[in-house]
Amino acid sequence: MYRWPELQFGSWNPSEAAYRARETASVVQLIESLNNDATRERAIHLLSKNRAIREEMAPLLWYSVGTISILLQEIISVYRSLHSPIPMLTDRVSNRVCDALVLFQCVAANPSTKMPFIEAKLPLYLYPFLNNTNKERPHQFIRLASLSVIGALAKVDDPNVINFLLESEVFPCCIRSMEVGDVLSKTVATYIVYKILINEEGLRYCCTVAERFFALVRVLGSMVLKLAEEGQLAENPSIRLLKHIIWCYHRLSESPRSCDGLRCRLPVILSDAAFIDIFRQGDPSAVPHLQQLFHNVSNRTSRIQTIEKMIRPLVKG
Amino acid sequence: MYRWPELQFGSWNPSEAAYRARETASVVQLIESLNNDATRERAIHLLSKNRAIREEMAPLLWYSVGTISILLQEIISVYRSLHSPIPMLTDRVSNRVCDALVLFQCVAANPSTKMPFIEAKLPLYLYPFLNNTNKERPHQFIRLASLSVIGALAKVDDPNVINFLLESEVFPCCIRSMEVGDVLSKTVATYIVYKILINEEGLRYCCTVAERFFALVRVLGSMVLKLAEEGQLAENPSIRLLKHIIWCYHRLSESPRSCDGLRCRLPVILSDAAFIDIFRQGDPSAVPHLQQLFHNVSNRTSRIQTIEKMIRPLVKG
Repeated sequence: MYRWPELQFGSWNPSEAAYRARETASVVQLIESLNNDATRERAIHLLSKNRAIREEMAPLLWYSVGTISILLQEIISVYRSLHSPIPMLTDRVSNRVCDALVLFQCVAANPSTKMPFIEAKLPLYLYPFLNNTNKERPHQFIRLASLSVIGALAKVDDPNVINFLLESEVFPCCIRSMEVGDVLSKTVATYIVYKILINEEGLRYCCTVAERFFALVRVLGSMVLKLAEEGQLAENPSIRLLKHIIWCYHRLSESPRSCDGLRCRLPVILSDAAFIDIFRQGDPSAVPHLQQLFHNVSNRTSRIQTIEKMIRPLVKG
Repeated sequence: MYRWPELQFGSWNPSEAAYRARETASVVQLIESLNNDATRERAIHLLSKNRAIREEMAPLLWYSVGTISILLQEIISVYRSLHSPIPMLTDRVSNRVCDALVLFQCVAANPSTKMPFIEAKLPLYLYPFLNNTNKERPHQFIRLASLSVIGALAKVDDPNVINFLLESEVFPCCIRSMEVGDVLSKTVATYIVYKILINEEGLRYCCTVAERFFALVRVLGSMVLKLAEEGQLAENPSIRLLKHIIWCYHRLSESPRSCDGLRCRLPVILSDAAFIDIFRQGDPSAVPHLQQLFHNVSNRTSRIQTIEKMIRPLVKG
């Protein structure tokens, strides 16, 4: 798309324009040095460090010749280190692939490159990292970076993105990351599941197949219990994770079918006054969701009890 | 799928079974040595040389951990050599990627791995080789190897395969290879176009958009004229190419719309007695197609002339 000169909007500043032109030139130069094996590692690192500077970086990465294929090559070259019996995944290799993943994230987040990125099925190349169950540090970094790419895709409410995520079976990958990831990975994975759930099709996907529903509720419950056991409930990163967990429970309680399933599967600690106080102090925005969740579940429970009471004499009769 | 022991069919031979087990073991060992940078080039070469030996090679390549990603990595690592101003694509690099492409061909040809190969969109990674217009020898080898993968996909009449080829726009890639490829590449590309044309959807794809139809007819005509100019009509590889060209013309003449378009676009040499004699001696199977082609075109021409004659007085009146 042709961009009008910024002068027209009265905000143009010659020195700023010169600075931005220099910056674009340096990004272009770094992208060019990806072509050389000797300079590639450093170029990917510098690009990944500076990704926030220039909005135009995503289209530059996507449309320059061969760049995405070089990043893809970096990513798939690590597959064979994932399941090696001897620890082959060093911190250096992990950092290198994480830098490439950060550039993928940049492409996934930009509205102009998000759909081409999905249409080329590139997110699928991250699934081996999400299906990996190794908990060592270099693996955790790659898991988090991969989840961040998927998170960047899911951030905008676009049914096409959710359809792709459902069709490409990202759900079991998220469940696995919620099981084996560190707190940050668990948080991003739970966020992705929440973004799937707020889509009607996504809610149906999770609630109509019993295995999916129970896998999700089991992992949500075990994350809450693990944080409680380890005394991490009041810690800052855990509060963010807990908030995402509550969002998921709340959204599940909006489907009558899964609301029934939640009745006896919500961890007791959620209704504990001390727990609610943690939220009141740490992140009050989650409290209404928690209240609504209990309202939905108990309301449905009492309705079911009423129906049961009505049916009982008929059945007996 | 479980395979019954071959003994049941009375063809089992202990020494042959032992030989085959040894062979499978050596294929598995070669696949394992792909994981090592030092042994990879030789392993790909040996696997590609022996692809015909074992039917099971395709599933072994497809389902073993990381193998396809290693082959893909080999393939995409050559992209940056394609458009380099200095000649970077040496014979050695070209041979190496051709070996990887031969293994892709093995996967594309096998009924059990063909559809997963398509669903993973792996054929798309060959398109940069097909859109390349460089005519030097290392480039010609890669072009031919890439076309052979697509040819292996298209060989079986499966509408799902044709749909994939149409959606992924293989047609312009084939036209380009028919323009810039050597005789073998031209032959495979024309064969792929013919396999598209014999599918109803494929014929519609080529005939309803004028640009596609004219691009195809133009390139078919120029291939015939070029072979005639260079005096290669009676040579063996050229006869195979000419046969595929005639199949394409013949199939186009079966659609009323494109038959009209063919009327004044068939190279005159096709109706030359000496030309038909070349076929009578070299490959008589093409002669009926050639006759039918002229029958369709002339029949339609005379029908159109009759209609024109009928309409003329009305228009004048």
